[in-house]
Amino acid sequence: MYSVVDVRKPDAFAGLFISLEGIDFSGKSLQCLRLREKLVREWADGDASRVLLFREPGGTEISERIREILLDRSLFQMDPHTELLLYAAARSQLVMEKIVPALREGHIVICDRFHDSTTAYQGYGRGIPLELIEKAHELGTHGILPDLTIVLDLPPERAFARQIKAHRSRDRMESEQLDFYRRVRDGFRQLASREPGRVKLVNADRPVEEISGEIWDMVWALISSRIEGGSGVSGGR
Amino acid sequence: MYSVVDVRKPDAFAGLFISLEGIDFSGKSLQCLRLREKLVREWADGDASRVLLFREPGGTEISERIREILLDRSLFQMDPHTELLLYAAARSQLVMEKIVPALREGHIVICDRFHDSTTAYQGYGRGIPLELIEKAHELGTHGILPDLTIVLDLPPERAFARQIKAHRSRDRMESEQLDFYRRVRDGFRQLASREPGRVKLVNADRPVEEISGEIWDMVWALISSRIEGGSGVSGGR
Repeated sequence: MYSVVDVRKPDAFAGLFISLEGIDFSGKSLQCLRLREKLVREWADGDASRVLLFREPGGTEISERIREILLDRSLFQMDPHTELLLYAAARSQLVMEKIVPALREGHIVICDRFHDSTTAYQGYGRGIPLELIEKAHELGTHGILPDLTIVLDLPPERAFARQIKAHRSRDRMESEQLDFYRRVRDGFRQLASREPGRVKLVNADRPVEEISGEIWDMVWALISSRIEGGSGVSGGR
Repeated sequence: MYSVVDVRKPDAFAGLFISLEGIDFSGKSLQCLRLREKLVREWADGDASRVLLFREPGGTEISERIREILLDRSLFQMDPHTELLLYAAARSQLVMEKIVPALREGHIVICDRFHDSTTAYQGYGRGIPLELIEKAHELGTHGILPDLTIVLDLPPERAFARQIKAHRSRDRMESEQLDFYRRVRDGFRQLASREPGRVKLVNADRPVEEISGEIWDMVWALISSRIEGGSGVSGGR
């Protein structure tokens, strides 16, 4: 039966919810892994079950089935609303099946992309009006938003230079594609200025260790403030 | 790229859009087939390509892939929002890939279920607040609603008596299931009283031919009014 997530219940969110965002090849996934590893070591006393990492879309059986449809290149005729609704459907399942139970247990959840990617890609990138995006968010997130969102900010030209290097590809980026990623990047930057308390930009055009260091400082500051405030997340350190 | 359906454009909806609704085993699918057959004969001068019948969820490659997830009984953990968003995603694709082009061509489209099923099943049946259902409709329908919706109205007990007869099943309906279908039926009836111009109830506890006759009278009256009004749908008869 249908139940509404009770966000007022004090123990409902004993944990911490962090998302990493950015355009493709901004280095998100590597930073997610490094952040998880450090949190397991420094915060969870080595207990890996207390720090969960999910990649979007995915993370549950249903969400992975939806992911297959979204990433199937043969389905090139997909309507933008269909795409938006499928991302929201995959997210809704991840939230209710995995994220909410983990937060209730007091765990830390890291998401490699969450709802801001939808705003940036489907909204700013593809041009779906933001008020429609918000409606999909309301259904897809169940009102469960990250406590902290870190955007790895990088010009698309730099991201694609990395891609070419990694794949030894000779493909050049088409100008249409470049325009799209410029709009997506701009979308993430707009989100950061609209919600400065939650969404933080990190310059991703630097060595991996420097970026990891800055992310760690932000995350540790948030954990410390929670411990001092007495609300949720109690660290092992 | 994203485009908004321009509902003000006069030739955008030269056709006619009819949906048939009702609880399971109300006889919808048979009535859809009979209606299509008669429209092909009486309105389209035998040209079957001018009367399209779609079953929801489905009708496009993407929508059928979504249908597989929705009807997979092993995925019993599906969250109600996920289900709602998947139905809306399948519908969005059907609308943009098939229904809008057909209506622009002046064809008649019959849908075996459309957005009212979502309101009745996910809203009244499962208890998702109607204002959330409306948000999913806005994305899923692109604002394209049926000109006429016929609800085959039947008490759940009668529908299940038919099921048992058809399948020679000895299963009895559980009281929980019966309560669910009572809420769904009530939802359809509420829709009919909220939108009496579009949504018409038909007593489905009668012989097939009588029901077909009443449906045909409603559809033909609508076609006639369109022809007299000079807006769209020009019949062959």
